[in-house]
Amino acid sequence: MTNSTEEEKRIRKEQKLVADWKALMRTFVRPENDATRATLVKYMEQILFGLNEFLKRHVDITKEISLKELSLRFKDTQISEQPEKKLAEVITDLINDIAPYAVNVASPYFIGHMTSAIPFFMVHLKTIVSALNQNMVKLETSKVASVLEKQVLAKIHRLIYQESEAFYQEHVQNVDTTLGSFVEGGTTANLTALWVARNKAFAPTNGFKGIEIEGHYAAYRAYGVDRSVVLVSRLGHYSLRKASGILGIGNQNIIAIDVDKNNCIDIDCLNKTIKEIKQNSRTKILAVVGIAGTTETGNIDPLLKLGEICAENNIHFHVDAAFGGPTLMSERYKYLLNGIELADSVTMDGHKQFYMPMTCGMVYFKDPTIMDAVIYHANYVIRRGSVDIGIKSLSGSREANSMILDSSLKIMGSKGYALLIDHGIELARKFAEEIKKRELFQLITPPQLNILTYRVCPVHIQNKLFSGDSNETRLINENLDRINRTVQRIQREAGNSFVSRTVLKDMNNNEIVVLRCVLMNPLTNMKIIKEILDEQEEIYKNRFENFSDNIEKDDI
Amino acid sequence: MTNSTEEEKRIRKEQKLVADWKALMRTFVRPENDATRATLVKYMEQILFGLNEFLKRHVDITKEISLKELSLRFKDTQISEQPEKKLAEVITDLINDIAPYAVNVASPYFIGHMTSAIPFFMVHLKTIVSALNQNMVKLETSKVASVLEKQVLAKIHRLIYQESEAFYQEHVQNVDTTLGSFVEGGTTANLTALWVARNKAFAPTNGFKGIEIEGHYAAYRAYGVDRSVVLVSRLGHYSLRKASGILGIGNQNIIAIDVDKNNCIDIDCLNKTIKEIKQNSRTKILAVVGIAGTTETGNIDPLLKLGEICAENNIHFHVDAAFGGPTLMSERYKYLLNGIELADSVTMDGHKQFYMPMTCGMVYFKDPTIMDAVIYHANYVIRRGSVDIGIKSLSGSREANSMILDSSLKIMGSKGYALLIDHGIELARKFAEEIKKRELFQLITPPQLNILTYRVCPVHIQNKLFSGDSNETRLINENLDRINRTVQRIQREAGNSFVSRTVLKDMNNNEIVVLRCVLMNPLTNMKIIKEILDEQEEIYKNRFENFSDNIEKDDI
Repeated sequence: MTNSTEEEKRIRKEQKLVADWKALMRTFVRPENDATRATLVKYMEQILFGLNEFLKRHVDITKEISLKELSLRFKDTQISEQPEKKLAEVITDLINDIAPYAVNVASPYFIGHMTSAIPFFMVHLKTIVSALNQNMVKLETSKVASVLEKQVLAKIHRLIYQESEAFYQEHVQNVDTTLGSFVEGGTTANLTALWVARNKAFAPTNGFKGIEIEGHYAAYRAYGVDRSVVLVSRLGHYSLRKASGILGIGNQNIIAIDVDKNNCIDIDCLNKTIKEIKQNSRTKILAVVGIAGTTETGNIDPLLKLGEICAENNIHFHVDAAFGGPTLMSERYKYLLNGIELADSVTMDGHKQFYMPMTCGMVYFKDPTIMDAVIYHANYVIRRGSVDIGIKSLSGSREANSMILDSSLKIMGSKGYALLIDHGIELARKFAEEIKKRELFQLITPPQLNILTYRVCPVHIQNKLFSGDSNETRLINENLDRINRTVQRIQREAGNSFVSRTVLKDMNNNEIVVLRCVLMNPLTNMKIIKEILDEQEEIYKNRFENFSDNIEKDDI
Repeated sequence: MTNSTEEEKRIRKEQKLVADWKALMRTFVRPENDATRATLVKYMEQILFGLNEFLKRHVDITKEISLKELSLRFKDTQISEQPEKKLAEVITDLINDIAPYAVNVASPYFIGHMTSAIPFFMVHLKTIVSALNQNMVKLETSKVASVLEKQVLAKIHRLIYQESEAFYQEHVQNVDTTLGSFVEGGTTANLTALWVARNKAFAPTNGFKGIEIEGHYAAYRAYGVDRSVVLVSRLGHYSLRKASGILGIGNQNIIAIDVDKNNCIDIDCLNKTIKEIKQNSRTKILAVVGIAGTTETGNIDPLLKLGEICAENNIHFHVDAAFGGPTLMSERYKYLLNGIELADSVTMDGHKQFYMPMTCGMVYFKDPTIMDAVIYHANYVIRRGSVDIGIKSLSGSREANSMILDSSLKIMGSKGYALLIDHGIELARKFAEEIKKRELFQLITPPQLNILTYRVCPVHIQNKLFSGDSNETRLINENLDRINRTVQRIQREAGNSFVSRTVLKDMNNNEIVVLRCVLMNPLTNMKIIKEILDEQEEIYKNRFENFSDNIEKDDI
């Protein structure tokens, strides 16, 4: 592993690896001679293809090791005074000693999370961003990168909102307006959207300077309310609760609305809740959130309907399209997101279905002036009247990930992305058919996008569940939960493939453990899916001779 | 430029660049044959050394272009349906058409901001992080990277707090405790620290579930307060105001404390303010913030004294060491940060004086359990009882930048970083001496770390300012402000070198425009500094024949 052994330390001492000004300077000077250049290129080659060996493997731990054992190897908490290793050694260590214990999220057998393979050119693009090292907070440290970012923001805004050419010509390079903002990820995108919505709801008014300046308590008193709420289906992402906690709204004030049998927000229930809340003048609805791709089941709320309800009730309409947003590039499936153009704000993730490297989130706003509610200035940067992007932004210093997205859109075209999107959705459908064919499995949520859930539940047990009384149902489900947790864990630990698990409510509102698959790797195909299901059947057979077998304690 | 001209479009049409499943698949499959591998390496070579040409140049626009003109070239807001360009073209475009209009922050003549050159190995390390594409939110998508991150968090925690070996052995891999958190940058680090401080101040109590759950309004009622405040010197970073706005505290409740003649927080003034606030039981002090390296002047507050005051008054003590933190690695200058070990929380930036690529911030906590105040769970990840790092984190999905810092500490050693830190501080001192020697300039803030400010102010005017009445002083300063704005702008636009400017208060509490330099590039030396000053003298001479010359309108 990368921590020095005694033997290594002895060798190092002999080699006398010491910090030295001249050597240090050289790491800042770009290489002048061919030999040094060749060395640097060789390192990149090692990185690209040394890791390649790792990336060709199956999902996990070919070198099996428990977390506990792994942890023991990383307990050196002293920063070494002198250099411990040369760059070449560090790279070799990362390739040989670290990578094998990382998770190969690029494997087509890794279908458990929204983290997947990325095209290899993304790594080249990220390298360019790092080499330029522009800081997007201000024009003085980014120049063309700021102008380019405004262009790519307009492109994605247009994908969502389809405003007129005149609209985009007016705003694309307008220094006073903002079509969106690059952020760290979906969480900070949702946070930014609710931040703006909150400030809009508690805007400055007679004798009140606004919630951003005076704070929540003063705002509630100025507006005569004692509670504000955000409404979202109970499948809303946990970042919405976190954002409400951070923003001072209180995370219990994210009101979870029931879902219908398709895991979409129940419109009647929403309408009823809005009506009830409106009867109490001391509660303010800050926003309704529609989901375009629930994290757990990949379902899309009826956005058109939600947009209409929000318009009628004058409520900020936010759409969390962190996962499903890029579906807009698919001619075949973009209809699923009809109504997203009514959203006041939209969350998108670059590192999900735009297939960008970690970390890149975005938030878009229908109204190009709405971000004026979150303006900040300083004297040394982002001065009043300046064109710095950092004036309206959750973050300060920030890398130029917009450059990656811009390049990727050029390399792929929307059609290229559509091929990936369509493949995922259609593969998920075939996957669902395969589950239905197999007697051991029960499909829980059929795919609307490219996510589906199912569980181990032999067909005779399924029949029992349909006919049984509630007490028996509960007992069976408890057993099934344990079985599914075990099957998922054993498969993950074996390291050939990975599906995730989560907890959903079944039609009787009972919580059940399910297996969850996200199909977003173009190399995943039905052959691989069948192998994954076969493996699960095999685990079940070996582990559970009959249904009421003992389950181990560690299956949590 | 990168947008297609008609001619390019015609050629493309002939080449029939179309999205195609097989070609797409290939970008996900790692290359199997030598030719493809060679191509990919060639691209990396182009990136490393094509950009190298750019990075060897002076600061800015060798190709002079106004922002307005540049903006006109980036107004294409349609995502192209079919691929517009091949990877090779995109890379060539970025190198030849984009980079020349970016800002060469790596130039030793770029001494205006905290964005500087980074060692070239940082680009290699970032490439590794992208190629592995681990997602730190959960162990299932990061495994060894999570374990490694905990180790590097412990290393920096130890640099700050110097707790015992036993303490670190207990916590380094403890899945229940947290020594710190990687965030996007200094802004989100400060936000995280104040989030934790806020939740600690309004913790659950009799019948109240805590501010995170119930929100600000309920919290204030439960605790019988109607205001909470954060105290920081008036040189505090603007992100503290932003954080207070976001957190619902209200940014007017960041109370700016006066500074002494050394730009450090005035302790008497702070004590007086605390005493006054404490007389009003309805105002709560959430935190006192000490600064270890003010953004504008690089000064360090008396941290030991602040720590004692906070302990006496039972107030959360946060230190914003985003810039100055790494000074702890310098045996020669670490004494400047004495008392930082008393801080309840500390902000550090990787992309500043750890010389990491954008974007990497960190926040550290003395108490390994204090982040329990910001725990979030979900069913599909970061479940209760899991060891996922994302349980206590502002962000969700996040890249493994900790891997870069870990590697860099091994390659540099603390001694290597110390060489950089010491060079910056000592160069700044020589710079200050040079300013004093020149009749045209007035040193405004002598460097404590590696930041100094000065202004164009001929020595006879300096004498006038010392003896003049307040009205005359004001008029002179207004003229000086315009001159300094002009000199800074012309120098920036000429593109050979870059210093920034900001506004500070002089000894009479008048706001004056000053030039600001940050010395953190090891290639910057006195020869370069003299050139930069010579250029400023030259601009002054050419532009302002005598002191009362007209100033152009655009000097804002």
